[in-house]
Amino acid sequence: MSHDHNGTSLEEFRKYRQKMNHKILEQGNLQIKRFFNLDSQAYEDGALSKKTKELLGLVSSMVLRCDDCITYHIIQCADVGVTDAEFFEVFNIGLVVGGSIVIPHLRRAVETLEECRAVTGIKKETSSLKAR
Amino acid sequence: MSHDHNGTSLEEFRKYRQKMNHKILEQGNLQIKRFFNLDSQAYEDGALSKKTKELLGLVSSMVLRCDDCITYHIIQCADVGVTDAEFFEVFNIGLVVGGSIVIPHLRRAVETLEECRAVTGIKKETSSLKAR
Amino acid sequence: MSHDHNGTSLEEFRKYRQKMNHKILEQGNLQIKRFFNLDSQAYEDGALSKKTKELLGLVSSMVLRCDDCITYHIIQCADVGVTDAEFFEVFNIGLVVGGSIVIPHLRRAVETLEECRAVTGIKKETSSLKAR
Amino acid sequence: MSHDHNGTSLEEFRKYRQKMNHKILEQGNLQIKRFFNLDSQAYEDGALSKKTKELLGLVSSMVLRCDDCITYHIIQCADVGVTDAEFFEVFNIGLVVGGSIVIPHLRRAVETLEECRAVTGIKKETSSLKAR
Amino acid sequence: MSHDHNGTSLEEFRKYRQKMNHKILEQGNLQIKRFFNLDSQAYEDGALSKKTKELLGLVSSMVLRCDDCITYHIIQCADVGVTDAEFFEVFNIGLVVGGSIVIPHLRRAVETLEECRAVTGIKKETSSLKAR
Amino acid sequence: MSHDHNGTSLEEFRKYRQKMNHKILEQGNLQIKRFFNLDSQAYEDGALSKKTKELLGLVSSMVLRCDDCITYHIIQCADVGVTDAEFFEVFNIGLVVGGSIVIPHLRRAVETLEECRAVTGIKKETSSLKAR
Repeated sequence: MSHDHNGTSLEEFRKYRQKMNHKILEQGNLQIKRFFNLDSQAYEDGALSKKTKELLGLVSSMVLRCDDCITYHIIQCADVGVTDAEFFEVFNIGLVVGGSIVIPHLRRAVETLEECRAVTGIKKETSSLKAR
Repeated sequence: MSHDHNGTSLEEFRKYRQKMNHKILEQGNLQIKRFFNLDSQAYEDGALSKKTKELLGLVSSMVLRCDDCITYHIIQCADVGVTDAEFFEVFNIGLVVGGSIVIPHLRRAVETLEECRAVTGIKKETSSLKAR
Repeated sequence: MSHDHNGTSLEEFRKYRQKMNHKILEQGNLQIKRFFNLDSQAYEDGALSKKTKELLGLVSSMVLRCDDCITYHIIQCADVGVTDAEFFEVFNIGLVVGGSIVIPHLRRAVETLEECRAVTGIKKETSSLKAR
Repeated sequence: MSHDHNGTSLEEFRKYRQKMNHKILEQGNLQIKRFFNLDSQAYEDGALSKKTKELLGLVSSMVLRCDDCITYHIIQCADVGVTDAEFFEVFNIGLVVGGSIVIPHLRRAVETLEECRAVTGIKKETSSLKAR
Repeated sequence: MSHDHNGTSLEEFRKYRQKMNHKILEQGNLQIKRFFNLDSQAYEDGALSKKTKELLGLVSSMVLRCDDCITYHIIQCADVGVTDAEFFEVFNIGLVVGGSIVIPHLRRAVETLEECRAVTGIKKETSSLKAR
Repeated sequence: MSHDHNGTSLEEFRKYRQKMNHKILEQGNLQIKRFFNLDSQAYEDGALSKKTKELLGLVSSMVLRCDDCITYHIIQCADVGVTDAEFFEVFNIGLVVGGSIVIPHLRRAVETLEECRAVTGIKKETSSLKAR
């Protein structure tokens, strides 16, 4: 009933996303290609920082209740150093604005965040080992 | 393509929900904790009965098309004695208000209801055996 | 900025609704006519009472954030004797499920409810005068 | 309560739309400008005709319940010769897919269509007078 | 994280849909039965062709972000001869109207389309073998 | 057709909002009161600044397409010093995530922003006159 989160690693998410985006873009519809470009550019540093923009992407994905979009923005946010306390303040705004209907997505978001932290932990250990 | 309902028992749904709710609440964001409290209190007996309120929760979940929320409220409704005829009248309102886009969720709702009835049947048999 | 509620009476709402429904139905699309029939029938007494069904229609309209639908169901609910305490428990469920994005609609709903009560008050006085 | 349609002509709609689009585009955010271009290009003749694409835009606007978008696409559809029977088949699909929550928008759509036909009638008469 | 598309064939989708629709309809709620009829009739040839109507169903399903509905309409569209170029113009309109939140559904839609084409390819080969 | 923005000042918006919020809260439903408190608290300084949180509220309101909520958060954002360039980057994210269906709300948002800037301009002049 619940979206099965355990069986699909962040790595699988990345691979599927990359494979299908590739197929979409190679199909040759120029306007779809331009849309994808606009989508990437929207989160780049500008008057607002990339970090703030990724938080905006995350909260939008929560209130619109799209698990894949939430996962994507959590990964991006974690990459630019968003802390747990910051994440939960965004989650709270998503919850208050979007209502209890957001809760099942919040559960999966928290699981995704855990996976992100675990992956980063492994990476850090590995690179500190290499650094010796 | 269809959400796999067979592979996940109601029991798994309950466990995942409980485990993740626990993680969310132990993280220490006080406002999220308060929101969860408000969410629980909304369905308690008051001017309207718990039963009516659970039906309100169910129809809201249907028109907003959230499978996990539908599952949760079906379980609650079944617990307070909602009959099949009553369930299908709620389903019909959800369908008319929300449109055919609700149909895939209706299919899974009917499957969930079946599982609920099966579980209750087993419980009743067991307790009547014990009662002897 | 806020939807202008003061300048349009419940009477105007009813007239516009009736006039346009008439135009839609006289156009001759049989399927639309059938949809309108299904919509009316959904709230009739059955396994669940008309009152409960109107409450279901109201909460659905709130979480989907449609002012006209909210107005319609408030009128219907008031007609079948829903009390203020009951109305506000439905409003609360709409708010908790749908989130703060529902609040502007809640403001207009409360104004509509006030107008309903005022109209009913006038009707009662008039009919009690006539009854003498 | 109902969206006031009588007091605002299609001409006012066009003027407000044009004035504000101009302000948005002159502000200088390049990505918003590109988005507006993609939006215009999406409805141009291609593998599918402009007419089919405008019908797609209309039904999307109905199920997403945006009055201004519905108005815009009705004008475009009327311009490329969509008949009343065709309009009502699109309205029916919008209604079945999106549910009764679409009905208030359908009422306003039918009023907008009437205004479009009236304006076109006046134009035709005028140009046939000029043609003599 | 991503909806698992590989493990569920179009055939499984059809079977689950058929099985559950059967259960819903045999339950005996007459209004739900009528709604299902209206839903089927909405896409039949009329003033607009079945093909155009299926495209309308597809774009509606995309902007409302329902995977099962998208899958259903892709199958129907493929059956009536919609080409890849036409599909991607519908996808583009869905994307522009509904925004980047549609992208995860677009990925799964493209995968579904691939499966449809593969199945049709096998059918054609088989029937050309039989024809010898 | 377009939401009439010219005839309603920001001042009227504030007054209506305040009047109706007062009526809602004085009605005595404790849970609704608590929800309103949670809603206010969500935007206070914490791990994230009030400014960032108001931007999160604004983008959420855009993708969920609620004019009143957009107006409210634009006023709040302007109060904490959000610049035009920053506003338009938020608008762009709202547009890309939510799609062209957001455009009518963007038009009204830009008009609201103009009104905010005009009001602030008047205030500044007045206070600098007083300061002499």
